Amino acid sequence: MGLLIKNATLVPMDGKKEVLKNTNIYIEENKITHIGELKDDIEVTRVIDGKNKVAMPGLINAHTHVGMSLLRNYADDLPLHEWLTEKIWPVEANLTAEDVYWGSLLSMIEMIQCGTTTFCDMYFFMDEVGKGIEEAGVRGILTRGIIEESGNEDEKLEDTRRLYNNWNGKANGRIKVMVAPHAPYTCSPSYLEKIIDLAKELNTGIHIHLSETKKEVEDSFNEFGKSPIKHVYDLGLFELPTIAAHCVHVDDEDIEILRNMNVSSVNNPSSNLKLASGFAPVDKMLKKGISVALGTDGSSSNNNLNMFEEIHLAAIVNKAVNNDATSVPAIEALKMATINGAKALLWDSEIGSIEVGKKADLILIDMDKPHIYPIHNTISALAYSVQGSDVDTVIVDGKIIMENREIKTLDVEKIMFNAERIAKDLISR
Amino acid sequence: MGLLIKNATLVPMDGKKEVLKNTNIYIEENKITHIGELKDDIEVTRVIDGKNKVAMPGLINAHTHVGMSLLRNYADDLPLHEWLTEKIWPVEANLTAEDVYWGSLLSMIEMIQCGTTTFCDMYFFMDEVGKGIEEAGVRGILTRGIIEESGNEDEKLEDTRRLYNNWNGKANGRIKVMVAPHAPYTCSPSYLEKIIDLAKELNTGIHIHLSETKKEVEDSFNEFGKSPIKHVYDLGLFELPTIAAHCVHVDDEDIEILRNMNVSSVNNPSSNLKLASGFAPVDKMLKKGISVALGTDGSSSNNNLNMFEEIHLAAIVNKAVNNDATSVPAIEALKMATINGAKALLWDSEIGSIEVGKKADLILIDMDKPHIYPIHNTISALAYSVQGSDVDTVIVDGKIIMENREIKTLDVEKIMFNAERIAKDLISR
Repeated sequence: MGLLIKNATLVPMDGKKEVLKNTNIYIEENKITHIGELKDDIEVTRVIDGKNKVAMPGLINAHTHVGMSLLRNYADDLPLHEWLTEKIWPVEANLTAEDVYWGSLLSMIEMIQCGTTTFCDMYFFMDEVGKGIEEAGVRGILTRGIIEESGNEDEKLEDTRRLYNNWNGKANGRIKVMVAPHAPYTCSPSYLEKIIDLAKELNTGIHIHLSETKKEVEDSFNEFGKSPIKHVYDLGLFELPTIAAHCVHVDDEDIEILRNMNVSSVNNPSSNLKLASGFAPVDKMLKKGISVALGTDGSSSNNNLNMFEEIHLAAIVNKAVNNDATSVPAIEALKMATINGAKALLWDSEIGSIEVGKKADLILIDMDKPHIYPIHNTISALAYSVQGSDVDTVIVDGKIIMENREIKTLDVEKIMFNAERIAKDLISR
Repeated sequence: MGLLIKNATLVPMDGKKEVLKNTNIYIEENKITHIGELKDDIEVTRVIDGKNKVAMPGLINAHTHVGMSLLRNYADDLPLHEWLTEKIWPVEANLTAEDVYWGSLLSMIEMIQCGTTTFCDMYFFMDEVGKGIEEAGVRGILTRGIIEESGNEDEKLEDTRRLYNNWNGKANGRIKVMVAPHAPYTCSPSYLEKIIDLAKELNTGIHIHLSETKKEVEDSFNEFGKSPIKHVYDLGLFELPTIAAHCVHVDDEDIEILRNMNVSSVNNPSSNLKLASGFAPVDKMLKKGISVALGTDGSSSNNNLNMFEEIHLAAIVNKAVNNDATSVPAIEALKMATINGAKALLWDSEIGSIEVGKKADLILIDMDKPHIYPIHNTISALAYSVQGSDVDTVIVDGKIIMENREIKTLDVEKIMFNAERIAKDLISR
């Protein structure tokens, strides 16, 4: 008894064959149980025609702040410091749990519509994001961003512990909780040590911003005599599995540390370009053996959560940066958005590729579109021509959550209405 | 008797107000005859509801090769020289007029669906592109790319003269013809002089590739002791209005020449990134007063013709290049894709902005989408969040050529079928 996707073009991202034409994928409960020729004894409750469609793993957005959709297009074309201190932070100071709930759901709609099935979020009021994940039917990592503030240091640690206890493993295992010191420039060494101890206690991973801007790195050298990456390494942070967001301004020693400690870095091309943070050495990191994942960052610094745009950017931007048209080829950019994301999120035994035994998190892309024709090469088409709006069907944990671009799990109109209402109110608070 | 677009959010790109809410646009025949409050004596034959829609000028793709859609995703992630000599040129050598006809129509579908109403094309079998423009209902500049080949120098000039005589001003003025020496490295100085004379004789403009790669500039210094731009300037090419595609590797003297001679440069961000050509100094050129337009280049080096992607890229890439988040703000990127494109194509008296008296070339964008919500700032939303697939309605020369994303003028299925058939055949010829 299961769901059959019939005659699709399969892009499994399993490290073996890149493309398999006319392939069947059979899903029972929440798992992929069969790929290829149909078995005689198969019992099918539902068939999806895969003709003219690519089936690939659901995309993994390895670094975002989903509540920030409320601030999309609110403040742009500004220097980073002015953007943060005069625009973003004053509004964020007034955000309520309800605001974050609706903002997060708005982001989940957008992500589903562009083929993202899993995301790693760092924000606050994270219970609201957890509720959203339960309702939307997606998969996600909750991390409560910890910025050191005199007086409530312990409260934020306790909030993370509570979040872990309440949410880790919930929603049929679709939710995990990690520990998120915001950055080494917002948490002192002693506070970072406490945070590391908490992660060890909970036996979970770390999600942190590292070396996003040149100024951050310069400040770190001035204050600690070393780079942010060396600094947190010396504090023992990388003894825990770590999702290191950005890693834009990294030197050879940093890369050596990241590789030796098996740290996943998350490239956020749109955000790094838009905020003028710079160009991460993605090609170099990949060639050195670092697993580089891909993220959108928040929609106030992007200003969308479209992972196909990030795939496209990761592939093309690095070519110009390296003056080498062979840098970050299409298949590498697709890996960044799928299996590498799963590795970063400590989830690669269950998601990130289409393989028998893995969870059924996959998307179907309608390739029967003028802007994708003719289809000389499916992998190139996915990286360079396919748009987020070409995603037709989204399946997470064996459940169809979008079909023919219609989201099955959420009340889209209601969420848009509430997001618009709150956004207007936010600015006048 | 006319077409009324009622209560739209108007982004006129007329250099005055950036956004006008709840505005009416009235179109008679092929012109915009009224904007704003409705007059009492207005006679409306058709009303389009502009609620939740942005009306903006149709996008202008100022440099492309529409026939090349047949080679989309055919050869990627390769060094430029290998890509051209081993992949693209061998296939192009076998292209027939019929191939170019179907490939061009495929590109026109894609462009219409992403909001492009006008394009400037450089290729061969340009009569086929002209036929396509007539049928599709779009607007375009035909330029027959001239590469010097021993024995048929005069034939190519004659072909351009014939093209001009047959097509300039055709399709109710929707077609213009210019003269297109491919590049200073494919045409000798004496041949360029003949081409310049032809453009003078026809009293039309020039479309040329200039300073696309570092190698091209180095070769020019080696051969002529000066940059490609200085070289063609000294030959008198800029005495004619010139569309200078790429202008990636330009120095201060080049910029001075472009400005003094009123040359429009065309930025092609996707292509320059993907082919590892480099980063054009767009911010600097704009600040020096050069009119920089925007283009997709061909879909074999992009691999799409989505001008919203180019707008997005022009805005974000230049910020990182200049280490300045205020570089190329949203409104400048939108100008590049509209009024600056019109200036480049010598068409700004008729298109490129929504103003009374101008031709009715405009698009309606459906803003009622989760990935655009909430709408804090319409200009930012257009540059950073809107996708090509959000274009709902396309009007060219007063005629609706796409409505609710359905193209009215072309048989989409037939064109896709033929493009796929030809593409398969091409590779095995």
